[in-house]
Amino acid sequence: MDSNQDRKTYTRRDLLKLAGAGGVGLLLGAGGVGSLMMNSKTTASGSPGTPPSASEDIVPFYGKHQSGIVTPMQDFICMGAFDLTTTDVQAVRELFKSWTEACARMTAGQGVGDESTNAFLPPKDTGEAIGLLPTRLTFTFGVGASFFDQRFGLAGKRPEALIDMPRFKGDALVDDWSNGDVVVQVCANDPQVAFHGIRNLARIARGKAVLRWLQQGFQRTGAADPKGSTPRNLLGFKDGTNNPDVKNASVADEVVWVPPTDGPAWMTGGSYMVVRRIRMRIEVWDRTSLGEQELTFGRHRDSGAPIGEKDEFAKLDFSKKDAKGRPLIDPASHVALAHMEGKVQILRRGYSYSNGIDLKTGQLDAGLLFICYNRDPRKQFVPMQQKLAAQDRLNEYIVHVGSGLYACLPGVGQGGYIGDTLL
Amino acid sequence: MDSNQDRKTYTRRDLLKLAGAGGVGLLLGAGGVGSLMMNSKTTASGSPGTPPSASEDIVPFYGKHQSGIVTPMQDFICMGAFDLTTTDVQAVRELFKSWTEACARMTAGQGVGDESTNAFLPPKDTGEAIGLLPTRLTFTFGVGASFFDQRFGLAGKRPEALIDMPRFKGDALVDDWSNGDVVVQVCANDPQVAFHGIRNLARIARGKAVLRWLQQGFQRTGAADPKGSTPRNLLGFKDGTNNPDVKNASVADEVVWVPPTDGPAWMTGGSYMVVRRIRMRIEVWDRTSLGEQELTFGRHRDSGAPIGEKDEFAKLDFSKKDAKGRPLIDPASHVALAHMEGKVQILRRGYSYSNGIDLKTGQLDAGLLFICYNRDPRKQFVPMQQKLAAQDRLNEYIVHVGSGLYACLPGVGQGGYIGDTLL
Repeated sequence: MDSNQDRKTYTRRDLLKLAGAGGVGLLLGAGGVGSLMMNSKTTASGSPGTPPSASEDIVPFYGKHQSGIVTPMQDFICMGAFDLTTTDVQAVRELFKSWTEACARMTAGQGVGDESTNAFLPPKDTGEAIGLLPTRLTFTFGVGASFFDQRFGLAGKRPEALIDMPRFKGDALVDDWSNGDVVVQVCANDPQVAFHGIRNLARIARGKAVLRWLQQGFQRTGAADPKGSTPRNLLGFKDGTNNPDVKNASVADEVVWVPPTDGPAWMTGGSYMVVRRIRMRIEVWDRTSLGEQELTFGRHRDSGAPIGEKDEFAKLDFSKKDAKGRPLIDPASHVALAHMEGKVQILRRGYSYSNGIDLKTGQLDAGLLFICYNRDPRKQFVPMQQKLAAQDRLNEYIVHVGSGLYACLPGVGQGGYIGDTLL
Repeated sequence: MDSNQDRKTYTRRDLLKLAGAGGVGLLLGAGGVGSLMMNSKTTASGSPGTPPSASEDIVPFYGKHQSGIVTPMQDFICMGAFDLTTTDVQAVRELFKSWTEACARMTAGQGVGDESTNAFLPPKDTGEAIGLLPTRLTFTFGVGASFFDQRFGLAGKRPEALIDMPRFKGDALVDDWSNGDVVVQVCANDPQVAFHGIRNLARIARGKAVLRWLQQGFQRTGAADPKGSTPRNLLGFKDGTNNPDVKNASVADEVVWVPPTDGPAWMTGGSYMVVRRIRMRIEVWDRTSLGEQELTFGRHRDSGAPIGEKDEFAKLDFSKKDAKGRPLIDPASHVALAHMEGKVQILRRGYSYSNGIDLKTGQLDAGLLFICYNRDPRKQFVPMQQKLAAQDRLNEYIVHVGSGLYACLPGVGQGGYIGDTLL
């Protein structure tokens, strides 16, 4: 995805100057982020020492849709799934309300809860983000199929599109890295801010839910790529060139958002999130010739252009032949299969991960935390992945080791809470 | 550590404008970084597509000392230890030469090796950093005690200061996360650039050395903290306030660099690196009162100031008493013990880490990748850690799970290679 976001940040001093000139209002979008100037301990709300934030560092938490879906990709992700330990639906409701309040505050650059300096109590916020800008922090919540089992009386509300994911050819899924009752995707342009987000949600959940899995991810940052060109995956290839242009609302409606006609009603404006932890066989790939690598992807490595083209964004034309009459882009290449004759699209939002080494083999435990959004996985992700799992040349170099499908709730209005249309 | 680095980056366009004005020379320091302008495939050296880099994105690899020691801390680390699989000292020499060449290129923003477009060969560089600025990439090499065993005929050269680390009270060390023949600390202001660095070293080592452990780490970035204030650890406290000011060369000489008088001669200008993987008991900490947290560190959480003070950088005065005559800063607090009556200093260079969750307990597997440099661990790190291990209030909330001590080689001159004074 060519996000090309504006990476400019303001210093506190810049903001104070602007505030003096009455200009801070100009920096604030329509998001209504609450009290932003909280520079002293005497401010009732806000963590002491938290600097003010410019609107470009804030993605509003409240809205028609959840943020973190069509939001241009931030540089870091810290993502986790929770299993509920309570069987009381009212306790779940309370948890989602507490999470909503915490997310609204953190995305606005505030600490969790009004800060107390009472030495006899644990601080409400864990503290590692004090003084940091929110750096476009977003939280995106989804619920898995297990949320609709017998525990909470919600079985009748399970969407038909929230299927039990079929087993794909080659899957080597680890249960501990898959599924979960509730998933939370936390993204930000700073890894400490993202970690702080999920850590505080886990803390708030104590007694009601526990983390089932947690995975951090990254891509190249603005420090290394000020122009914001298409990120490369750990196989060295650009990844996301052909992502649908969801800045165009009709494209987003077609690909991502559940319309009222799809049902159930509580999912209108939501989306379905697929997560796949895809380990890359990096050492094998690194012994592979450039020709084989490019054949596998169907693109040139350095430019990202389709085979035979020069421009990354050149149209994919599968009818083009080489001098010997063979297709320039191999029909079993990743790009050819994922294209799905242009009829099926998903919104990809993946991050690289690195979990050290596999102690059994000494090989790198690294790959892609693949995330995608689609309005109906039965018509989008599943047929695409079935095709890829069966034929993709890339399968020689990757293995899917974790998986999850989640119904991503609609956005939350001011005064509402995440999941309020369902609960 | 208050690094307060200049975080400005240049776009490629800025640089081309400067180049047009004949101004690129002004951007280059004394580091002699070789060919910087390599914008086309016709350039003999340099990975195609690699953008030019400003000197502030480049820390020179060659010099009297290795970089990455007194270099202001970058935001990311990707650090690993290798075990040698060869027993031929000449093969080790060749490996260190190849690593030197690769590091000199990568730190200058070039790919590993002159890039070939020969489709029948694997690319020399793994590709994920193509087009990225080097973002102050540094490589810092050290050798462990096992490097001096019987394999390479170097037993007689082992420095006395490269001791077998004593077992400290409370240590719960995991062998797989400790020691190793060779350690490499890779730091950069971009996580993909840092990963690319160690991954390519591992690739070059194939047949001669394998990764024994690998750990990534982070701190708050310039995106979240444009002013570059003291980073906070994952317990929410500022970490590094009292680090020695190694910008002052006489302080660096006193604390960090091995002088000729210490011996052995091949270590002159080197340093000793200690690595400790310190897991934090985050869930327990988060249930602890603010008062207990501040008592434990001996500092206020929000300001970072010593207890009873307002300013982070206020002098530590352990003679100050409260109204009841008790010391303001508890004698068993972390800051009081680590102070060592002002007589012992180390240069700390730690990063936070997060490795997902501990699947056995569901708790966060996160903490501090503690790294420090000192000129003699027998006189600096070891006595300090013995005192901390025995008495530090913080021990209730942390556990040391990995450990390594390494002789960090002197810097490399142009034409030399890392370790050439030893090998």
